[in-house]
This record gives sequence, C-alpha cells and structure tokens, in this order.
Amino acid sequence: MAIKEGDFIRLKYTGKVQETGDIFDTTSEEVAEEAGLVTENKTFGPIPIAVGVGHVLKGLDKGLVGMEVGEAKSIEVPPEEGFGVRDPKLTQLIPMSEFKKQNIRPQKGMNITLEGHNGKIRSISGGRVTVDFNHEFAGKTLVYDVEVEKIIEDDTEKVYGIIELQYPNPNIKPEDHEVKMEDGKVMIYLNEMAKFDNQITYAKFRIARDIWDNMGIDRVEFVDVFEKKVNTEEEKEEETEAEE
Amino acid sequence: MAIKEGDFIRLKYTGKVQETGDIFDTTSEEVAEEAGLVTENKTFGPIPIAVGVGHVLKGLDKGLVGMEVGEAKSIEVPPEEGFGVRDPKLTQLIPMSEFKKQNIRPQKGMNITLEGHNGKIRSISGGRVTVDFNHEFAGKTLVYDVEVEKIIEDDTEKVYGIIELQYPNPNIKPEDHEVKMEDGKVMIYLNEMAKFDNQITYAKFRIARDIWDNMGIDRVEFVDVFEKKVNTEEEKEEETEAEE
Repeated sequence: MAIKEGDFIRLKYTGKVQETGDIFDTTSEEVAEEAGLVTENKTFGPIPIAVGVGHVLKGLDKGLVGMEVGEAKSIEVPPEEGFGVRDPKLTQLIPMSEFKKQNIRPQKGMNITLEGHNGKIRSISGGRVTVDFNHEFAGKTLVYDVEVEKIIEDDTEKVYGIIELQYPNPNIKPEDHEVKMEDGKVMIYLNEMAKFDNQITYAKFRIARDIWDNMGIDRVEFVDVFEKKVNTEEEKEEETEAEE
Repeated sequence: MAIKEGDFIRLKYTGKVQETGDIFDTTSEEVAEEAGLVTENKTFGPIPIAVGVGHVLKGLDKGLVGMEVGEAKSIEVPPEEGFGVRDPKLTQLIPMSEFKKQNIRPQKGMNITLEGHNGKIRSISGGRVTVDFNHEFAGKTLVYDVEVEKIIEDDTEKVYGIIELQYPNPNIKPEDHEVKMEDGKVMIYLNEMAKFDNQITYAKFRIARDIWDNMGIDRVEFVDVFEKKVNTEEEKEEETEAEE
C-alpha cells in the first residue's frame, strides 16, 4: 500500500549535504557515531511522523508520498524545499576592532554568535572579517537516504508517536506514558517525571494540536494522577500478619 | 449538630491581639478596610476549612469543636497555641555602624529585614540598636471572634473548599473550576488560567494531600482539556448556509 499524505509512518533516515557527502542528521546511532555527531542526550531509532504535514522538511515530505513499506530510496531536497536559499544580505563585513573588543581572534571557518545570531567566518582581509549569518545548510542541496519501516494504523500507536515526536525526553520511554481512546477523545496519562518539567505546558499544546490536525479528534485530555502512597509501616504490619 | 474534628465548615473570623485590640486578620472586607489592612489581591468571605487538621492555628482549631452552625463566640488563643512563645535569643543587639553602612537611620518601631529575617527595632541607646526577630505575634494572646456559617456535607462542595483554601487566586472564581466525583476518585478540571501558573504543580500536591487526608479518597486526577476551537470562517459559512 503506497504512502499518501496524512499517513503516519516510522521512518529511518540519514541526511547528507550533496556537495560534500557530510552526514548532519540520522536516526541510526551507529551512523551518528561513525560520522562524529553528538549522540549524548539524543534518542535514536526510526522516528514517527505524519507525512505531508511539516514534521520533516518539505522536500522530504514530498519524496515520501508513494513509497511502500520496507522500501528504501534516496530523496534529493533542493534548497528551496530544505533550509532555504542563501540571502546575500546575511553576509556581513565586520571590522576587526569589534573582535578585539571581545578578545576574539577571528579565524576562517570559526563559528561565532553575534547578538544572538549564529554565523561562520568566511574570510579575513584588510582588517575586515566576512561573517555569514545564513543557515548552515541554506543554499545546499541535501540527500536523505530513507527507509519506511512501517505505516502506523492503530490510533493509540499514532498518539504514542505524536508524544514521542513532540515531547522527546531521553529520561522517559514512550511506554512510560499511558494513552486511552474513549468516546471520541484521547486521554493521556503522562509519566510522573513529566510533572516537574517546565517545558510540559507547551509540549501539551503541541501534542494536542498534532492530534486535532492529523487524527481528526477534537478533544485531548491530559490527566495528572495523584494517588495516596500506602504507608510503609502499614505495609510491614500487613506482611507480619500474613506470616502468622 | 455540634462540630467535631474532621468536619468541613465555612468560618467567619476576625483575629485581634488581646492586649491592644488591634485587628490583624479577618474574613470581612468591611472590617479589613476599617482596620486599615491591605485588601488588594485578597479574597474575602467565610473560609472553608476542615476542623482540627491544622488549616488554622491550633488554639482556634480546638475552640471550634463543639460549636453549632450559626453560633458566634470569641476564642482566646494563648501564645503556645498561636504563633509561639517569645524566644529571648531572637532579640539581638546590632551596632549602629551596621545601619550606617546600609544607609539606614534606625528608629524605634521600624520594621527591617536582615539576611532575609524580618525584625522590628525595639530600642536604640548608646550606639546599639535592639532588634527583635521574633514573630510579630509571638508571646501574644490572640482573640478570634468567630461565627460558623455552615457545615459542608456534600463531597463535591468539600473539594471546591479545598481548592479555594489551597489554591487561592483572586483572578479565578472557585466555580470556574469543575469537580466530578466518580467511582471512589475525584476528577478536577482546573480553569484554563491555572495552566500557565508556575505555582500550579505544588498547589495540585497540596489539594491532593488534603483530599487524601481529610476525605478518605485516595485517588485525585487533575484533567487538562485541550479542545479544538471551531474555525471562525467555518462558523460564518455555516451561518450563511443556515440563512439560505
């Protein structure tokens, strides 16, 4: 069965810059380690996405339509369907004196942050430093080697997928949450650890919106359960009684 | 029916220092205004409490037992059942030079904060300032004029009372929350505005604990509902169709 827009799938991918072959993102831990990418605090494995809704780059979304489960292919993503074309205005000449003030010795290829924007030093000449504030992959054609692991048909599994995508947390496994489908609504019992996460309010919004938009379910309930812990001494007494 | 420990009641009170007759706390807005107490961001009206569980001072808790609905009386609260006895070690002599450093000209009766502790200047003599860090009402006998407005019998009403007590919020009326009792559990749908309140996680703990301890219900569920808003343009179209 060919994949169409709106389908939920699990996807393996490795993204490379076409020009250089440099790997910049992958769902495979082995590939990430070989390529020298940072693997700490990152979760690997096929990611759950809805096709055609913007969970991935536009060019990747388009390339997935029509694929079959188990199929592997390479999808070429041109800049305008990737990280955008290069904007010449984002390349600026900055006097060397600015760097001296901040005690930085500029070098070609150095990554710097200026007023909150990330840039890369392209060249240095005549007391002037050329800094490029375009996205690292702006203007680049990318190649994604993808493989569709499965189409997710079950609604509960779709919800688990959305939680995994919108609230990735290396300390909580997806199955540590609980999902119930009932009378046209979704009830989500997030794991205890999520209670103390400052990000959780916004994650709830993202999860709810993804369910509304991609599953046609209009009501999402997040339930925080507070259950009285049984007193340890009472437990001990019960054990003693049981032994008698 | 006389009030006993564990009963939920609505209580009107005005607390005074016996010695001076100064009013320091009251549930009545008129009394508060006459006494010159700060009334901004404060909610007035009879407060919901469980008797004998520490929602109010110990001496007040004891005095309420045995009262009847509608009854009014004055309860005398000795220091040891109020804000504690005075600790002489909490009165300290501080050199005048310390105040000069901070550009403060000490005066008798002035309230000051030193290293996070609130104190009051008792006397000044010979370059030394006597500061009292005891609680303002330590060592004082208090008199509470109380009136029991009602005994709360209904479980749902008890839960509303606990929310009001443990999560007072001048911007949300208690009836803006929703409470459901179901199969030995309590389900609480807090108002939308509570979602963005940083204090809400700890308020949930306090509410749950109060329900466990005083209502004998072991499971409390807080439900956050995210419901898709109907698109305004679709609404307009529907209206137009209906007119045709």
